[in-house]
Amino acid sequence: MRFDGRGEGSLREVRITRNYIKHAEGSVLVEFGDTKVICTASVESSVPPFLRGKGTGWVTAEYSMLPRATHSRSPREAAKGKVGGRTHEIQRLIGRSLRAVVDMSLLGERSIIIDCDVIQADGGTRTASITGAYVALCDALQGLVAKGELSSLPIREAVAAVSVGIVGGVAVLDLNYVEDSAAEVDMNFVMTSSNRFVEVQGTAEAEPFTIEQMDAMRTLAVDGIKQLFQIQQAVLAR
Amino acid sequence: MRFDGRGEGSLREVRITRNYIKHAEGSVLVEFGDTKVICTASVESSVPPFLRGKGTGWVTAEYSMLPRATHSRSPREAAKGKVGGRTHEIQRLIGRSLRAVVDMSLLGERSIIIDCDVIQADGGTRTASITGAYVALCDALQGLVAKGELSSLPIREAVAAVSVGIVGGVAVLDLNYVEDSAAEVDMNFVMTSSNRFVEVQGTAEAEPFTIEQMDAMRTLAVDGIKQLFQIQQAVLAR
Amino acid sequence: MRFDGRGEGSLREVRITRNYIKHAEGSVLVEFGDTKVICTASVESSVPPFLRGKGTGWVTAEYSMLPRATHSRSPREAAKGKVGGRTHEIQRLIGRSLRAVVDMSLLGERSIIIDCDVIQADGGTRTASITGAYVALCDALQGLVAKGELSSLPIREAVAAVSVGIVGGVAVLDLNYVEDSAAEVDMNFVMTSSNRFVEVQGTAEAEPFTIEQMDAMRTLAVDGIKQLFQIQQAVLAR
Amino acid sequence: MRFDGRGEGSLREVRITRNYIKHAEGSVLVEFGDTKVICTASVESSVPPFLRGKGTGWVTAEYSMLPRATHSRSPREAAKGKVGGRTHEIQRLIGRSLRAVVDMSLLGERSIIIDCDVIQADGGTRTASITGAYVALCDALQGLVAKGELSSLPIREAVAAVSVGIVGGVAVLDLNYVEDSAAEVDMNFVMTSSNRFVEVQGTAEAEPFTIEQMDAMRTLAVDGIKQLFQIQQAVLAR
Amino acid sequence: MRFDGRGEGSLREVRITRNYIKHAEGSVLVEFGDTKVICTASVESSVPPFLRGKGTGWVTAEYSMLPRATHSRSPREAAKGKVGGRTHEIQRLIGRSLRAVVDMSLLGERSIIIDCDVIQADGGTRTASITGAYVALCDALQGLVAKGELSSLPIREAVAAVSVGIVGGVAVLDLNYVEDSAAEVDMNFVMTSSNRFVEVQGTAEAEPFTIEQMDAMRTLAVDGIKQLFQIQQAVLAR
Amino acid sequence: MRFDGRGEGSLREVRITRNYIKHAEGSVLVEFGDTKVICTASVESSVPPFLRGKGTGWVTAEYSMLPRATHSRSPREAAKGKVGGRTHEIQRLIGRSLRAVVDMSLLGERSIIIDCDVIQADGGTRTASITGAYVALCDALQGLVAKGELSSLPIREAVAAVSVGIVGGVAVLDLNYVEDSAAEVDMNFVMTSSNRFVEVQGTAEAEPFTIEQMDAMRTLAVDGIKQLFQIQQAVLAR
Repeated sequence: MRFDGRGEGSLREVRITRNYIKHAEGSVLVEFGDTKVICTASVESSVPPFLRGKGTGWVTAEYSMLPRATHSRSPREAAKGKVGGRTHEIQRLIGRSLRAVVDMSLLGERSIIIDCDVIQADGGTRTASITGAYVALCDALQGLVAKGELSSLPIREAVAAVSVGIVGGVAVLDLNYVEDSAAEVDMNFVMTSSNRFVEVQGTAEAEPFTIEQMDAMRTLAVDGIKQLFQIQQAVLAR
Repeated sequence: MRFDGRGEGSLREVRITRNYIKHAEGSVLVEFGDTKVICTASVESSVPPFLRGKGTGWVTAEYSMLPRATHSRSPREAAKGKVGGRTHEIQRLIGRSLRAVVDMSLLGERSIIIDCDVIQADGGTRTASITGAYVALCDALQGLVAKGELSSLPIREAVAAVSVGIVGGVAVLDLNYVEDSAAEVDMNFVMTSSNRFVEVQGTAEAEPFTIEQMDAMRTLAVDGIKQLFQIQQAVLAR
Repeated sequence: MRFDGRGEGSLREVRITRNYIKHAEGSVLVEFGDTKVICTASVESSVPPFLRGKGTGWVTAEYSMLPRATHSRSPREAAKGKVGGRTHEIQRLIGRSLRAVVDMSLLGERSIIIDCDVIQADGGTRTASITGAYVALCDALQGLVAKGELSSLPIREAVAAVSVGIVGGVAVLDLNYVEDSAAEVDMNFVMTSSNRFVEVQGTAEAEPFTIEQMDAMRTLAVDGIKQLFQIQQAVLAR
Repeated sequence: MRFDGRGEGSLREVRITRNYIKHAEGSVLVEFGDTKVICTASVESSVPPFLRGKGTGWVTAEYSMLPRATHSRSPREAAKGKVGGRTHEIQRLIGRSLRAVVDMSLLGERSIIIDCDVIQADGGTRTASITGAYVALCDALQGLVAKGELSSLPIREAVAAVSVGIVGGVAVLDLNYVEDSAAEVDMNFVMTSSNRFVEVQGTAEAEPFTIEQMDAMRTLAVDGIKQLFQIQQAVLAR
Repeated sequence: MRFDGRGEGSLREVRITRNYIKHAEGSVLVEFGDTKVICTASVESSVPPFLRGKGTGWVTAEYSMLPRATHSRSPREAAKGKVGGRTHEIQRLIGRSLRAVVDMSLLGERSIIIDCDVIQADGGTRTASITGAYVALCDALQGLVAKGELSSLPIREAVAAVSVGIVGGVAVLDLNYVEDSAAEVDMNFVMTSSNRFVEVQGTAEAEPFTIEQMDAMRTLAVDGIKQLFQIQQAVLAR
Repeated sequence: MRFDGRGEGSLREVRITRNYIKHAEGSVLVEFGDTKVICTASVESSVPPFLRGKGTGWVTAEYSMLPRATHSRSPREAAKGKVGGRTHEIQRLIGRSLRAVVDMSLLGERSIIIDCDVIQADGGTRTASITGAYVALCDALQGLVAKGELSSLPIREAVAAVSVGIVGGVAVLDLNYVEDSAAEVDMNFVMTSSNRFVEVQGTAEAEPFTIEQMDAMRTLAVDGIKQLFQIQQAVLAR
């Protein structure tokens, strides 16, 4: 039994609220338990320099936490004048994860910019961001189809993500902050709805892990992500 | 009659939701119509260098907008590596407004950091921020009283703010984005509950304004702020 | 009677010396008592990106203080690698004040960059900057007329600025540094020669202020600025 | 058969030259084929603020590439004024990998700073860096033991790293630049000499990957890293 | 005959006005022809970290040009967020030149910060800065003696500087901007009043120079600097 | 006799290894005793903005030291977010020295970027950099000739550099770190193979120097640089 009563392979309550910010082409509030992230998808009619004139599009992401999303206040990166290493890692991960399921050659010379802003953090902010951002991205692209700017949705399959870890020697799914702080191992899996992997990241926080532990965590993640795909589908079907 | 049907001296619907972010000592979601700002108050047990050892406290503020709070996406200040001029102006204004009603000599060597993060912008983000931040600040200070760290609430009176302007030659209260973009003159008033002024800022956007226009705007503002004090009181009384 | 023997409604001695820097299209040394600011106006044949191709011009301002303009030395913003909040506020104020009296549609695709560099500070540096910069701007624009690049002076009326405040409970005009440090309230008024307001900024430093105090300060400011217009006119007539 | 004639499970020629930089407490030139990295270990008698007074040490890493380590010249991060996202990711990875095998409670209040500077890049710079840095770290710590500052070597086991990938549908070990550019999937494994994992990072560059592909890559990596441990041991035994 | 009628070995008119900025411990306006620099000397009661607790003092310098000191406007370094290479070179040169004549062991744990701000540039800004800064430094140190904080003036001898160059094949002294732009070679000499060298910097702008040319320039410089010492002495004797 | 047994006018052992980095158009490892610098020359098909469309080329240089090139570790400039004053001075010196011998009008609209990265420092890093960079530059330009992109080598003559100083009252050539730290005077000479000067920089570290000392150092430098030209020629002849 875990701190919050969940079983080892249980997700926290996951909620995705669409059309959360009125100005954005796509926007959701995604909640994994007490972790809450606003994900917006903005359509811009330009691409980065390395893609100009190639007829292809781009999807990129930025990630941030409000200063008081965390237990104690974290200084703003804008005030410090630079984006930190952890932020860089996470926003690159989100961008790669979404690009893996978008056919950018069908997107035209457009960029979709995903902004994931954590307003309350309780573990798993990067996996919640990816899972929610996929829905915001679908809404933004669906809007381009509705306006006739795209002939079909340039999405190959769905993408979602979950964290797993070893806590007290046991593999558990979707760690909250208390578990994350105590975990011996922390892994994040990003998968597509065809049951394939886009990103795998595992870190031994306290103790290196065995091949058996890696497999146990992987099994939990594969099951958890399947549930996330059902939640995404249900929300998008509304 | 205004774009949204309001009379010249009417506020938009104002809502203040307390305890919005679970980690913060004080936190609200403040809404002035479609303008939505998360205000948190964080207590830290240190003061800036210029106050160290003087036995007095400090209240300061930071302000930011999510990239997609606005009609078109604005680049993040963290990515640009510096805080822009408009942000500086607004966060200095919020800080001064709150310090005007706090007795910092009773606060002890503590800082209260107010974070105002605009998640959706529709005009009046700075006045909504001040009005909401006052409530978050009360909650944070009340928490210090409840824990016995302060013997009484070091607040002299309430503070709130509203925008006024000249639109199409007519003075109007609490401008939304469409009005703000079209305004000839834009003023912001910050007042205390003893009916006195903390900050007055007026800018001729298109045309200099007369002393009569200034007085007409001031009258609207004084009335509007009185209503904001009632809303703050009602919310704090719950 | 004030520290320096002035009456409540008296300006300090104001001097404006034209053609102070030989390279600039317009340049003055403006002195409000011991406050001394070099204001230059530079003509550039381009406009900021948001105005390109629109056939209209732009006026902008930058402000700085020499490190030892002040009682104790202030670190250079270049060495700190960023422009501070106070500087941002002041240079935005100067820019808005000058744009209020220039017909930018008659300026062509040109920028006028105003640089206000305080070489000695004794209170009122922003109001002295605006008052002096207007003269430098006139000289730069007159130069464009003389060279046939403009058919007429694209200036609608004059602009000048003064500070007022409440010191020891009494409203006074044009505060020097000693008064400014002791003031309960500090206001700056920017007006045009048609007796209208461009900017009004009032801040309660120590105590919120009443509507009667605001009116008393406004009366002093309106009178003081009238005298500044006479000084500008006399200097420009030479 | 691969571009350079290697079999699918073959490492490139790996060479580690100790005592490469005369000033450093530990230093090696590590070569994985044409990838060449200078790794130094510097001992400093202080720890980061969050560890001060706790009696424990710290190991951290920085990573950089000479501008012309790559096919076309890359601008210096110092000239751009900020460390990029890729650099942040890699140096955090190197630091975590080394901390996993050091008993920092035995290190005293000392920091070991690992610098990995790539002088020539041909794929696998991060895995070569980790593999070489371990040797430099051993030399630096051995030096502290030799001087009597540590009673024993605070290293629990060895650590090394290798890249694997899917190229043309086939799993291959230790990709060079040409393979890396063409790879569908790119994984990096960091392991300890007790056959356990410290870090696992897999990214689908072109196509998501299956669980079978992940296992095939993992098998190659486990074998390759065993050979790296033998090379490290042989070099350290000299 | 030179552009401005001077002979090859003639200085421009040199003027040094003391007590130019009322707040600074020492301050001058130094003019070499149309080159005008405000030099201030500020006394601070601390030293850089590398000198703390050693009982010795420090002298350092910063240099800047107002944006419109030059023919066309130069962007501010504060706005660009970094100090450029030329500025770095010049301020390091000024600092070294002044430290060469101060006995820092007699200064106590104090720093003297020299600020050289060019308000109008016409060639030779660095040599004018050094020559003027020496006078400001003397005034600041004399002030410490007058207040009893130092028992005697910790200055060993005077320091001054001048530029020389090869223009049209001929060696000339104290180049103005027009000559400087056309010079084949540009040298700066910094000397002390005992006829010794502190700094020598020569650069072939268009053509390498011979040993005979170097000697011709050196002879002019030695003579020119002797005149500068007389001007400094006369100014300080008032 | 010097610390390392050399005579006053002797160079350390100088070695230049060509083709040191496989990707660069020109690259050497240059060694002046224990000082080791990697110099690469990169050809880019663009020029800085101020030269665009003028049909002429450009040569520029960047300089850096690995953090542990020095006795104690120096923080990276990339981590500090800015390039320091010393680095600016040195890279500007290297660039000017090389431009002095290249006929940039024959280079076409191309830039040659020289990177000098010190991997081990023992005094004289800037003079070693210039001496080695000349060889890397020749190789890069020879490559353009070989590919038919240039009809002839646009080099007028060779360039090399050496340091001299006064140590213990005696003029010595090519100072190592120990001598450099103890030197009363430090000079650097950059000369061309026609026996002319490109740059002369002399600094009194501890004591101003006489005209006789300057001449003694100059004589040593002229002799030392002649030997460097022979070494460059021999290496390029291979």
